[in-house]
Amino acid sequence: MAPSSQPEFEHPRKAFGWAARDSSGVLSPFNFSRREIGEKDVALKVLYCGICHTDLHMVKNDWGNSIYPIVPGHEVVGIVKEVGSKVQKYKVGDKVGVGYFVESCRSCQNCIDNLENYCPKNIVTQGAKNIDGTTTYGGYSDSMVVDELFVIRIPEGLPLDAAAPLLCAGITVYSPLKYYGLDKPGLHVGVVGLGGLGHMAVKFAKAHGAKVTVISTSPNKKDEAIIHLGADSFLVSHDLEQMEGAKESLDGIIDTVSALHSIIPLIGLLKTHGKLVMVGAVSKPLEVPAFPLIMGRKLVAGSLVGGLKETQEMIDFAAKHNVKPEIEVVPMDYVNVAMERLAKADVKYRFVIDVENTLKPSS
Amino acid sequence: MAPSSQPEFEHPRKAFGWAARDSSGVLSPFNFSRREIGEKDVALKVLYCGICHTDLHMVKNDWGNSIYPIVPGHEVVGIVKEVGSKVQKYKVGDKVGVGYFVESCRSCQNCIDNLENYCPKNIVTQGAKNIDGTTTYGGYSDSMVVDELFVIRIPEGLPLDAAAPLLCAGITVYSPLKYYGLDKPGLHVGVVGLGGLGHMAVKFAKAHGAKVTVISTSPNKKDEAIIHLGADSFLVSHDLEQMEGAKESLDGIIDTVSALHSIIPLIGLLKTHGKLVMVGAVSKPLEVPAFPLIMGRKLVAGSLVGGLKETQEMIDFAAKHNVKPEIEVVPMDYVNVAMERLAKADVKYRFVIDVENTLKPSS
Repeated sequence: MAPSSQPEFEHPRKAFGWAARDSSGVLSPFNFSRREIGEKDVALKVLYCGICHTDLHMVKNDWGNSIYPIVPGHEVVGIVKEVGSKVQKYKVGDKVGVGYFVESCRSCQNCIDNLENYCPKNIVTQGAKNIDGTTTYGGYSDSMVVDELFVIRIPEGLPLDAAAPLLCAGITVYSPLKYYGLDKPGLHVGVVGLGGLGHMAVKFAKAHGAKVTVISTSPNKKDEAIIHLGADSFLVSHDLEQMEGAKESLDGIIDTVSALHSIIPLIGLLKTHGKLVMVGAVSKPLEVPAFPLIMGRKLVAGSLVGGLKETQEMIDFAAKHNVKPEIEVVPMDYVNVAMERLAKADVKYRFVIDVENTLKPSS
Repeated sequence: MAPSSQPEFEHPRKAFGWAARDSSGVLSPFNFSRREIGEKDVALKVLYCGICHTDLHMVKNDWGNSIYPIVPGHEVVGIVKEVGSKVQKYKVGDKVGVGYFVESCRSCQNCIDNLENYCPKNIVTQGAKNIDGTTTYGGYSDSMVVDELFVIRIPEGLPLDAAAPLLCAGITVYSPLKYYGLDKPGLHVGVVGLGGLGHMAVKFAKAHGAKVTVISTSPNKKDEAIIHLGADSFLVSHDLEQMEGAKESLDGIIDTVSALHSIIPLIGLLKTHGKLVMVGAVSKPLEVPAFPLIMGRKLVAGSLVGGLKETQEMIDFAAKHNVKPEIEVVPMDYVNVAMERLAKADVKYRFVIDVENTLKPSS
């Protein structure tokens, strides 16, 4: 590699973080660089970064498209250190966030509609090829340079560490609750799976005034769901009697489980006109019977994070309604252990790296 | 059977029609009876009755729940001959229709919302147990007695024979176009299958101002779809090149095919936020991949005929916009041949029985 194409020298601004170098997925200190700030760019010092399941998939090359080295991290909270000459929304010292995307085409219908998340040319925050041909590096790092369009303002009153997971886990469940009309008081919403996404779905649905039922394979999550997270009821998905008793009781379901599972019993839990929304990407095709969908005008759908405008709305809503992820704050050098624990679902409910205080320069 | 429980004597009003006596599905003349009109009942003389694919399934016991004898027919057009003392909407001489249902619970949320079609206790027009315990007999008969709530007014200007198939085929495709927001001018709507339902979907979507693409297994239906029915384009579903070329081009699809088929290529035809609505009840579960639903916020859904209020709206819309089914009017004694031809999809696009002029008393 010519020095200019090496991560450390391709841009003028020195940066460092932790990267995975191969599909072992093990992360280690990594010197790289960030671009000079453009007119519309915001440079931020990273304070906290959430560890999302997607990070684990990417460092392990689970989807077969990872290009190493990878600096993960798309639940980034930081403080503005510099702004470009034409930046309008942010000033030095502002508390800001960066989520799943750092660029989009800005001209397609989805971009026009503030749905950059569905822009076919959007660029994700980690491990993607950016407009200038260089690789995007995420928030397991000291600093970022991002166009202000892709920067979120962290509202007053939200702890900065707990704000981080809202930028992916939060918006991923908030957006479908809203789009599919499941954000109305008095509705009965089901949440399948009680991990990083699921526990946020419970909290947002409750904040919207819904009655919430958690559906899980693990009976021992019942107390946690009801007492700790505030769900109203709990169903063990393999308990046929319980499932039968709850038949046609839900207006909608947010299904956060990405492991293969049958959605047929979930369709049975829906009332007429009920909506089952998948946000966990099950890799194998699901079996969907046409008959109950037709007889009950039910739908099975998907949803992918959210656009920037809606992400800002979500985080403002979270601050206003005191919706906060449950987090375990860890130091940077704990990240490999955290990944192992995440793989075993041994976390309640999101790891957040204290980047500011624990990321030490590698040279 | 005691005489009072025999179809001919259980009610005071003599009636006759054609019935299937067993799963051979062969129809033959049948003497039965209709109830005395109640305060809210309308008695009508049947003029025309459409032959729906459901009739074929029922006379053949394809769904395993048929109870013989069956008088099919739920696309009924007639003229009011008598009204009960408290009937408000109709008077003698009115042209009226009866569709898929003749009764519902009237108290559940769906009934309150004018969605009697999704009432779990609704009673279908043919072969169901009515409130009084007797069997419902459909419109392959000389007369019907129906509560006015389940009677539709046939608007001026709509030919009475062509009006008949609107009462099932018409509303079955009109309702999902509307509910799923596919009734807006400028949208691009796909229609899968070009039978009784499909050809109506083309016509209603065009009347709403949509661009319409027909998707069919039969290349030889192209001219028919475009030249005769007014579709804008045509895709052969097994022509991979054509399907690839139309990728992500449709806002929504009405899938009318009840034979087993893969919906994965159809999901590929949808734009982001696109909607695939099934109205043909495929008996085996369909394979639905989560990934494209999530990445494109797409949905797979179902829809079942429509409520009474919407059926009236649909037929008024049809009269106003000159949306008429393509029909082949046949005499009553042709019904068995018509059923055979329907099984081979040898009809463009709906048989309608000229009941008034061809049904002869069997005794």
